[in-house]
Amino acid sequence: MKAEILTIGDEILIGQITNTNSVWIAQQLNLMGIKIVHMASISDNENEIIKALEDATLRAEFVFITGGLGPTKDDITKKTIAKFFNTELIINETVLKMVSDYFLKRDKKLLPTNYNQALVPKSCQVILNQNGTAPGIWMKKNNTVFISMPGVPYEMKSMMTEIILPKIKIENNLPFIYHHTVHTTGLGESALAELIADWEDKLINKNIKLAYLPQPGIVRLRLSTFGNNLDVLKKNIYLAIEELNIIIEEFIFGYENYGEESPSLEKIVSKLLREKKQTLALAESCTGGYISNLFVQLPGASEIFKGAIVPYTNFSKQDLLNVDKTIFESDGAVSKQCVIQLAKQVLLKFNSDYSIAISGIAGPSGGSDEKPVGTVWIAVANKDEVNALKFQFGDHRQRNIIMSSNAAINLLRKFILKI
Amino acid sequence: MKAEILTIGDEILIGQITNTNSVWIAQQLNLMGIKIVHMASISDNENEIIKALEDATLRAEFVFITGGLGPTKDDITKKTIAKFFNTELIINETVLKMVSDYFLKRDKKLLPTNYNQALVPKSCQVILNQNGTAPGIWMKKNNTVFISMPGVPYEMKSMMTEIILPKIKIENNLPFIYHHTVHTTGLGESALAELIADWEDKLINKNIKLAYLPQPGIVRLRLSTFGNNLDVLKKNIYLAIEELNIIIEEFIFGYENYGEESPSLEKIVSKLLREKKQTLALAESCTGGYISNLFVQLPGASEIFKGAIVPYTNFSKQDLLNVDKTIFESDGAVSKQCVIQLAKQVLLKFNSDYSIAISGIAGPSGGSDEKPVGTVWIAVANKDEVNALKFQFGDHRQRNIIMSSNAAINLLRKFILKI
Repeated sequence: MKAEILTIGDEILIGQITNTNSVWIAQQLNLMGIKIVHMASISDNENEIIKALEDATLRAEFVFITGGLGPTKDDITKKTIAKFFNTELIINETVLKMVSDYFLKRDKKLLPTNYNQALVPKSCQVILNQNGTAPGIWMKKNNTVFISMPGVPYEMKSMMTEIILPKIKIENNLPFIYHHTVHTTGLGESALAELIADWEDKLINKNIKLAYLPQPGIVRLRLSTFGNNLDVLKKNIYLAIEELNIIIEEFIFGYENYGEESPSLEKIVSKLLREKKQTLALAESCTGGYISNLFVQLPGASEIFKGAIVPYTNFSKQDLLNVDKTIFESDGAVSKQCVIQLAKQVLLKFNSDYSIAISGIAGPSGGSDEKPVGTVWIAVANKDEVNALKFQFGDHRQRNIIMSSNAAINLLRKFILKI
Repeated sequence: MKAEILTIGDEILIGQITNTNSVWIAQQLNLMGIKIVHMASISDNENEIIKALEDATLRAEFVFITGGLGPTKDDITKKTIAKFFNTELIINETVLKMVSDYFLKRDKKLLPTNYNQALVPKSCQVILNQNGTAPGIWMKKNNTVFISMPGVPYEMKSMMTEIILPKIKIENNLPFIYHHTVHTTGLGESALAELIADWEDKLINKNIKLAYLPQPGIVRLRLSTFGNNLDVLKKNIYLAIEELNIIIEEFIFGYENYGEESPSLEKIVSKLLREKKQTLALAESCTGGYISNLFVQLPGASEIFKGAIVPYTNFSKQDLLNVDKTIFESDGAVSKQCVIQLAKQVLLKFNSDYSIAISGIAGPSGGSDEKPVGTVWIAVANKDEVNALKFQFGDHRQRNIIMSSNAAINLLRKFILKI
């Protein structure tokens, strides 16, 4: 089956925002075995939209449209879709009720423009929006289904995963596709590719395709296969992963079956702590709250997370976390001694079972010959033991913060698991 | 003048890479006053490419093509362009010499596939590649110029800035395009649209187009116009913004001329503090380090940022930040009294000039009738004064964290500016 992705709105055409919605939609459809044949971004212009919809009818069975569904005047997608389908816009009572409730709950007044949100093309199937006010629209013309969604990423993603993708799966007889993703940390993409080259060469005979999906500090390996017997597909993938485990076990931190939640280092550590009914506290200098936020983003964080201190000055390291003043003179704030003291002290301050402490030079300035930008010391501790390690990352500040955070959480994971 | 951007290659269609080339090209062309009317990504397929080139001829005077120029087998762009122009591919001696030198310099053997790099359509203008082996191509059909470039970002960017953009500038007498973006916070998209409806209606007579660009807690308003006199364009936009200021001044936090760096609340507050040589400390409960990280992401953060405490438990609020135990019983941790004490205490602990304290129910659980999920108290303080305000956000944990953070930094901005 073929699909096309259409993005409506000038903000992409003038280069103001990057088209990440299309990337995400393309990934999901590919994972389902639907091939994307065309992606386009066009402006909020009726003729352009009509022409694009007509062209798409000739190319694809599914057309995914994002953007141009908000309440404001520059959003003409809905009107144009109604015109393309030779129909009119009518108020959908369910949507109107949802929009009213949405505003009521937030103590906000329902405005005349919000009524427009409840307008949908007559005879369309409405896709309800659980996270906002603009509904999605599902309509078919000849052999092509047109699916229009709001451009706000989390509203669009929730519609896709909860309603649209399952509906496409059920209504079409697609071959089984099976994916399994192996999450690794501690090796770069090239080094990993070198290490598993022989294993990778053999995948082609097993009808398994491999994709490297790198992120700062993490490389995900996605294995994909398709066919008519799901059990056979699963078995082939698991055998390949068993062989992979032998080669790179120490770098693997998680696995992800397609459709399951993606593992992350912070989710894995949160789960470990929850199982043990134990808790964590952080002393974050160069990462400045990034690790704390990773844990707090997860619902139920308070069960395992006691808190953090971001001692961004030497004074605060000394005053709030009792680091010996002499260490700053002898070893400096970015040192083994400093992170060991920070890890021990923050454990006591929050009365937690585990702690992480981190101090480094995120850049772009502040480096020296001895400690260049990207030098980071990390310590993990419990009440009996402390373990400290030095890392050398690159020149890029934001990237150094992410890489330091992943390295720190992975160090704690190994410390808890005693591996 | 109108342009179109065409990206050739499967890696975009399967969602493996994000189309950042198109974003960059769009930005450069907009700055020159060339309007992008269409962007498309298509696969390495002859029919698809021919169809896209034909369609583009009807829409645009310039077609920028990236990708599909490498030496590997799936790269058929050059052959297809030759076919589209009804001509053949011939060896270009200058390119062949450059390709040979390129390999010689890197001690690599010139392979037969590399000879293909020197093939170009007969009668095209060659754009030499100073950073790689694939040359660019410039060809005209009817009134449309087709410019084909390699997909490697730094090769493409260097061709564009050094050869292609200057050539277009010299050869054409282009109108100017001018954009100005107004950044607002504190009102949703609908409420903002309602408030400025009359002002917006008058823009059409001034040849100004308005776009709403919403993010959690922030709505950007982009005004665009074009014409032959840049001073007149700027004046028209500034007059419109002056009128807008009268209506929504209290919600505006920043302005962005096109091509300038985008303002953010944390950049603006950092700049204010740097100018005053003053500092900030944070007590973040429900936002869990998110605000701290926003400030630390900015280079030079240590000049204005002293640190943060994330007191995620009542015990740590009491033990590390001296909140009266009785407050948890009388008012609860999500209360005016609690954030006022947190703000005052964190100011003392870090000896900073300003502080922010925040405590709320991020969700998805933990709400009550009296304090539903999304209830957030924020306080800002200096040594003389403290100001606390209650906010009611939604159900979505991550979104609540972002909205709380934007609201908190904006509250501090107003507190510093005494507005």
